[in-house]
Amino acid sequence: MTSNQNDPAASARGSQLASDFTVSLHYDRRLYRQDIAGSIAHARMLARQEIISAESATSIVTGLQSIEAEIAAGDFPWRDDLEDIHMNIEARLFEVIGEVAGELHTARSRNDQVSTDTRLYAKSAALELIDAVRLAQDALLHQADMHVETVVPGYTHMQRGQPVSLAHHLLAYFEMLDRDAGRFASAAGAADVSTLGSGAMAGVPYPVDRESVAADLGFGGVTANSMDAVSDRDFSLDLIYATSVCMLHLSRLAEELIIWSSDEFGFVRMGDGYTSGSSIMPQKRNPDFAELTRGKSGRVVGNLMAAMMTLKGLPLTYNRDLQEDKEGLFDSVDTTLSALHVVQGMVRSAEFDAGRMRRAAESSYVLATDIADYLVGKGMPFRQAHVIVSNLSEQAAGSGRYLHELSLDEYRAASELFDGAVFDITVDSSVAARDVEGGTAFNRVREALQAAKARLAAASDHAS
Amino acid sequence: MTSNQNDPAASARGSQLASDFTVSLHYDRRLYRQDIAGSIAHARMLARQEIISAESATSIVTGLQSIEAEIAAGDFPWRDDLEDIHMNIEARLFEVIGEVAGELHTARSRNDQVSTDTRLYAKSAALELIDAVRLAQDALLHQADMHVETVVPGYTHMQRGQPVSLAHHLLAYFEMLDRDAGRFASAAGAADVSTLGSGAMAGVPYPVDRESVAADLGFGGVTANSMDAVSDRDFSLDLIYATSVCMLHLSRLAEELIIWSSDEFGFVRMGDGYTSGSSIMPQKRNPDFAELTRGKSGRVVGNLMAAMMTLKGLPLTYNRDLQEDKEGLFDSVDTTLSALHVVQGMVRSAEFDAGRMRRAAESSYVLATDIADYLVGKGMPFRQAHVIVSNLSEQAAGSGRYLHELSLDEYRAASELFDGAVFDITVDSSVAARDVEGGTAFNRVREALQAAKARLAAASDHAS
Amino acid sequence: MTSNQNDPAASARGSQLASDFTVSLHYDRRLYRQDIAGSIAHARMLARQEIISAESATSIVTGLQSIEAEIAAGDFPWRDDLEDIHMNIEARLFEVIGEVAGELHTARSRNDQVSTDTRLYAKSAALELIDAVRLAQDALLHQADMHVETVVPGYTHMQRGQPVSLAHHLLAYFEMLDRDAGRFASAAGAADVSTLGSGAMAGVPYPVDRESVAADLGFGGVTANSMDAVSDRDFSLDLIYATSVCMLHLSRLAEELIIWSSDEFGFVRMGDGYTSGSSIMPQKRNPDFAELTRGKSGRVVGNLMAAMMTLKGLPLTYNRDLQEDKEGLFDSVDTTLSALHVVQGMVRSAEFDAGRMRRAAESSYVLATDIADYLVGKGMPFRQAHVIVSNLSEQAAGSGRYLHELSLDEYRAASELFDGAVFDITVDSSVAARDVEGGTAFNRVREALQAAKARLAAASDHAS
Amino acid sequence: MTSNQNDPAASARGSQLASDFTVSLHYDRRLYRQDIAGSIAHARMLARQEIISAESATSIVTGLQSIEAEIAAGDFPWRDDLEDIHMNIEARLFEVIGEVAGELHTARSRNDQVSTDTRLYAKSAALELIDAVRLAQDALLHQADMHVETVVPGYTHMQRGQPVSLAHHLLAYFEMLDRDAGRFASAAGAADVSTLGSGAMAGVPYPVDRESVAADLGFGGVTANSMDAVSDRDFSLDLIYATSVCMLHLSRLAEELIIWSSDEFGFVRMGDGYTSGSSIMPQKRNPDFAELTRGKSGRVVGNLMAAMMTLKGLPLTYNRDLQEDKEGLFDSVDTTLSALHVVQGMVRSAEFDAGRMRRAAESSYVLATDIADYLVGKGMPFRQAHVIVSNLSEQAAGSGRYLHELSLDEYRAASELFDGAVFDITVDSSVAARDVEGGTAFNRVREALQAAKARLAAASDHAS
Repeated sequence: MTSNQNDPAASARGSQLASDFTVSLHYDRRLYRQDIAGSIAHARMLARQEIISAESATSIVTGLQSIEAEIAAGDFPWRDDLEDIHMNIEARLFEVIGEVAGELHTARSRNDQVSTDTRLYAKSAALELIDAVRLAQDALLHQADMHVETVVPGYTHMQRGQPVSLAHHLLAYFEMLDRDAGRFASAAGAADVSTLGSGAMAGVPYPVDRESVAADLGFGGVTANSMDAVSDRDFSLDLIYATSVCMLHLSRLAEELIIWSSDEFGFVRMGDGYTSGSSIMPQKRNPDFAELTRGKSGRVVGNLMAAMMTLKGLPLTYNRDLQEDKEGLFDSVDTTLSALHVVQGMVRSAEFDAGRMRRAAESSYVLATDIADYLVGKGMPFRQAHVIVSNLSEQAAGSGRYLHELSLDEYRAASELFDGAVFDITVDSSVAARDVEGGTAFNRVREALQAAKARLAAASDHAS
Repeated sequence: MTSNQNDPAASARGSQLASDFTVSLHYDRRLYRQDIAGSIAHARMLARQEIISAESATSIVTGLQSIEAEIAAGDFPWRDDLEDIHMNIEARLFEVIGEVAGELHTARSRNDQVSTDTRLYAKSAALELIDAVRLAQDALLHQADMHVETVVPGYTHMQRGQPVSLAHHLLAYFEMLDRDAGRFASAAGAADVSTLGSGAMAGVPYPVDRESVAADLGFGGVTANSMDAVSDRDFSLDLIYATSVCMLHLSRLAEELIIWSSDEFGFVRMGDGYTSGSSIMPQKRNPDFAELTRGKSGRVVGNLMAAMMTLKGLPLTYNRDLQEDKEGLFDSVDTTLSALHVVQGMVRSAEFDAGRMRRAAESSYVLATDIADYLVGKGMPFRQAHVIVSNLSEQAAGSGRYLHELSLDEYRAASELFDGAVFDITVDSSVAARDVEGGTAFNRVREALQAAKARLAAASDHAS
Repeated sequence: MTSNQNDPAASARGSQLASDFTVSLHYDRRLYRQDIAGSIAHARMLARQEIISAESATSIVTGLQSIEAEIAAGDFPWRDDLEDIHMNIEARLFEVIGEVAGELHTARSRNDQVSTDTRLYAKSAALELIDAVRLAQDALLHQADMHVETVVPGYTHMQRGQPVSLAHHLLAYFEMLDRDAGRFASAAGAADVSTLGSGAMAGVPYPVDRESVAADLGFGGVTANSMDAVSDRDFSLDLIYATSVCMLHLSRLAEELIIWSSDEFGFVRMGDGYTSGSSIMPQKRNPDFAELTRGKSGRVVGNLMAAMMTLKGLPLTYNRDLQEDKEGLFDSVDTTLSALHVVQGMVRSAEFDAGRMRRAAESSYVLATDIADYLVGKGMPFRQAHVIVSNLSEQAAGSGRYLHELSLDEYRAASELFDGAVFDITVDSSVAARDVEGGTAFNRVREALQAAKARLAAASDHAS
Repeated sequence: MTSNQNDPAASARGSQLASDFTVSLHYDRRLYRQDIAGSIAHARMLARQEIISAESATSIVTGLQSIEAEIAAGDFPWRDDLEDIHMNIEARLFEVIGEVAGELHTARSRNDQVSTDTRLYAKSAALELIDAVRLAQDALLHQADMHVETVVPGYTHMQRGQPVSLAHHLLAYFEMLDRDAGRFASAAGAADVSTLGSGAMAGVPYPVDRESVAADLGFGGVTANSMDAVSDRDFSLDLIYATSVCMLHLSRLAEELIIWSSDEFGFVRMGDGYTSGSSIMPQKRNPDFAELTRGKSGRVVGNLMAAMMTLKGLPLTYNRDLQEDKEGLFDSVDTTLSALHVVQGMVRSAEFDAGRMRRAAESSYVLATDIADYLVGKGMPFRQAHVIVSNLSEQAAGSGRYLHELSLDEYRAASELFDGAVFDITVDSSVAARDVEGGTAFNRVREALQAAKARLAAASDHAS
């Protein structure tokens, strides 16, 4: 304590820690395109509204364009003493075009400026995420296409339950990702309103044209209340939430790929680019990418928790706490984008072992339900049929056999309704029987696959 | 350890704890209406499709209706040894109508049944939440109507920033709640698909008519993939998320009401029903309801984190972990509904002290920006104007005065552009100057208020 | 909206929701023993200090004891109009002993009272959790005792890595639980200070003897600052945190039991009391208890997040938000206690399939490291040895063999250092070679097992 | 979709995202000192145990020391194609000393290596956090020393409750920080065991001396189970948890400083280094540092959520998910260290307005309790006294007065027990009356302050 106070090095470190506290430049510099786009649109509007002169606007716009080029080229003289991207660009603009740079800040405040920048980012990020979702969906369809007739055990409780088409299994993830795309689209919509013109909080005392700025920037509209505009971060929450749910879905798929890659399951062999060996066991295929996909779901959900906790109990309007809105958002977007690309590659490169899957399905009691349904079809009440098959299952298991290994005599001892047709019940007949919308019968899966392709194509058309 | 193992009471308690582990009846019994509605629709469809006889269906439907009446009347013989609501109703149906009850379970599994029940609940809860949001918005409009011309300091960083209309401040919350209603509507949409017909996971081997069951239950459609259908809980996440954001908004409003209720601010007096006194200080007005609104945001966000963590890394399809989906959902809905009703009552009953608010706005430097804009209007460059007013502010503060207490000589010493019109700059003129869409000028606030009323009315019409 | 306002039923429901908002009786009634114990100790001290008369104290104590008996017997007249347990007991005390009941509240406030109650609960709950941890550890030791020489593949990345003793694997969980016991003990320590005498926040204006009250209640000491005392909830966070980490550990064990119960692994058969079958597949063994253990980790972590968010940004001293401290704490304690009892039962009743585990270990490349170490032992540099064995592994895998299925000629073609002793490398020799503290050699595992037993016995002695 | 697939730029970006997925170098390079220290200790032990030659060890140690110097000097040739710090140092060691570098990896695996590195970091970080806590406590004592006799309203529910010493209020935070130091010490203890010798998971097949390596590295001991050792991240959770609770405490202090800095309260003026003005309102003092302290509590709690979610349900032993353990830990430590330094500076530089605080205390009804206690002192039953004072309070409030502004006649009309001595009840007498351990009477505060100084000094002695 006292020693530390007298220790100049410790004291200096403390001062450094404190002075770094408010700096955001290391992460908000990536908003430079958005910041410059917003400023250009603002300057042009000011000139159109005759709030500043056309000459001023031209000078400002030209200056900003040259700064954007500097940054893109890596030539920008970043100054750490200026805390954020906005102050860096502003200061540079004064250097580049002189005092007229000051006119850019007419009828604008840092509060509406930063909100606009982040909204532009969020909207663009959401659209990029949708693209990545579509790629991952496409990879699933690619595999589904090849595996409509591949039979795999469907699991409940990690126990073999009923045989299903592998394509059907994969299409379950197509559905999850489709909902994700919907959430990303909602998040893009939440970000799609311009806050420029809200000023520090109360609006601006100049005859600005908010709608035209919004249109220039590609926003769908303007915010309705200036105090809400500068303190609202719902659009950011919506996007982090959407990434969280998406990562949960990917964590489930990753878990399955990891388990299916085990020696014990042996259902899938992931592509070389998505596993690592050990130096001594090159044939070992550690599913590192799937594990990281699963593990990184934590950080994205953590970012959501962080953002929510930061917003809790904040009075209106702008409070500096809100500066914390960006890092977690960036990290969630980056992580989810990466994970989607990883997943699409993992799925696309996976080799499923159809033989091993079928053997797993056949080496089980998954046909019990179908045998009961057979008795129901012969007129036996459902419940009575269940009791009989339950007994048969126990009888088979007790002697180390599966149901189809029982003899007809054994079947008929349980019920005279059985005849040789009971042996026609196979994993194939079981799958075929689930001939209902959303069911696993091959024809249904083919229909679902076609429908999925059509949905994906429509989504892509819409996007392009 | 060893002592405990030999302690029959401790051992019995351990056994009890273990056996209670899987029980959900204490919370899922509230799904009884949904469960019975789902069963009735299923039974009728089975008869229409001639999977069971019309007589069986009639018997089942009648039995279920009598059970629903029993539960509603508090006469139902609940059995704790049957773990959940579904088994209680099923067992009771056998008692009431005999063995034909068994036919109800044809072409249905617990997995699609419970999913349907929860979706029916979620959809209905989301709509109830929208109603509560609308009531809270109405309370805000009620107050806004009375306070368009009430001037209050707008705050940034809890520091007085610019004068605003109190109605404008209140309308910021109207906007937040409007977004909440949108999220609740999205969540209702996510729940609005029927999973019946998905069976345990693979679909059912009967010619069911999924669409007609869905229509009977008021669902907008059916799920596209049976494996996804029984393991998907996105609709639940969406609703818990929507309640979380809503509670964050309410926590912000609550924080403001608490601070504004302090002796130091004294801006608002909350209704008697929303404060508690102390027995000894009856004039003390503890804002307990606002504090609980703020504090309960934690539990709702906690429920979201819980649900996400439970879903992380689950393989397909149904796993018993998914049973954990309901308690947090129920709690989030209940808490948010209550909080919305509390907030609408708090807002409606609040008495704002317009005089004190105005004095707070006037006793500050909030006009500095306007004085700078005055100089800009006289032709001075923006940045130069700022420097001059900055100096004037320091000069005033140094002598314990506000800007409007400086003399004209003092103003003119700073810039000859000043004349007597500088004293026309008041909190009222400042507010009036923010005459921009979304700004705080009274006419703009009146427009925003009318627009808000119209939006609310349209929403209500749509709902009714 | 308007329709709702005119709808008496909806309005009544809204009122009910609002009035329920502050009620805590449904969950805090379980604190009755703590509340009464605290009051008795307080009353006795007041008499000792001659703040109230001995007669008053006797009357109060007798009254409180009779109330405790009423509650324990289920005869207490609970009143929902009195919000919480404290008001219920206080009101009842007036009924039972008359106006002298009022003297109990001398030199005490609700704020220090409720804090003391919750601390008494937390301390007791932490100790109960330690007992449950010890039982679960004992179950692990019970199994470890039987399986020192059972060889199972140790996994990294869910891939077979090196053979280990099953007991060694189980003892890893013993260590986790041991740390949990330490955290519970820390949490008990955090709760182990009396806040009585802190009053509403500033201390009390009476000559109370805080230390003697603390001693009577079994507390280790008193709090040092009255304002901190009434607003501190760290002890509650510490306990919820400790339950969270414990549940994470249990979720890992549960995950392994679930995967090991799959048909594909087949390493373990859990006791009948911890699985459920399906009505049609009685031999199916769904690990429901393990799944719920895993799934319920979410709710406990959610409770931690909830508590943290509620505390964020609260000014001193007591705020009603703090009422939210109890439900999540109770739920976390209850859930973790149950899960520990479930886990101890699951572990104790599990039957491990030693043969299948050994075959899995042998059917793999897990000996590659040992073969490299063999070459190192012959003088070859480590890195060179790795390259050679890596090539041998690929050669074996390419021809569908394991390393021990290569011929001596093949070995010697890779390196002349190989001789027939290479075939002495087996899973058993591999395990035996890890003869280091904390390693899996049987003798080391036996030592670790003995040490664990001794630690557990010492902990139990300490506890009793 | 399809467009993207054909878009080389998008495809390249996707590949880049995927390949970056596993890289940790950008954050784990900060572990270089720990990594090198661990390797040096390992190499020396290998030589002592004659597992490698003394010459090899010397070469390795010298090489590692030169690498450490390179990194410290900024001269190290970082390679992004090597994913992490360990591979960078390993590859460089081969360049620097040649093939003998390979001997370093005898009897060690990446799994125990990375665990040891992170434990060394965590231990050191925890101790650094304790230092920072002590500095912040010292700043509180510095202010408390000056403000023992400064009277401020104590608040409950943000309402003035009872007058207290400002020092007493500040010491409440001293207590919170003291508990934080305890948690950091526990976290340091959790990290204080060496995992080296655990190998990949099963132990190592060499006669290593684990204890001596541990001692060389300053660890207090070695882990007891190798499988637990490589998959345990409790020590990391413990530290992130400790930072979370600390940040919650700081968020509460920050909230108070923000509210106290408002114009309405005006209790404190924070130092220039901890506020920002606006360009136009230089006298505006935005408490940005306090706001960020409050806001950043979210990210630290988010990191805790992330870490917990990542660990949930992971089977033994090492899984790549565990790589996610570090970034959140680093961020939590960095953020909390910075916040502690900020807080100590804010507190130290704060100027409290004693006059304004006293006036706030006097302009209230905070003496009501004392007046009731006065009547109790005259023999009136507690409850009756409360009723009388309650009526007096209402009477005073109704006529816009405080209690001490009532006349003696008014007092006596309420009870004849009142005499002129009632006017001796002041905020000072009220404070003085709380003369109980932990209470706010000045003498008690002075004692508490001395005790706090002694505790802090003892802690510092212990640390140095």
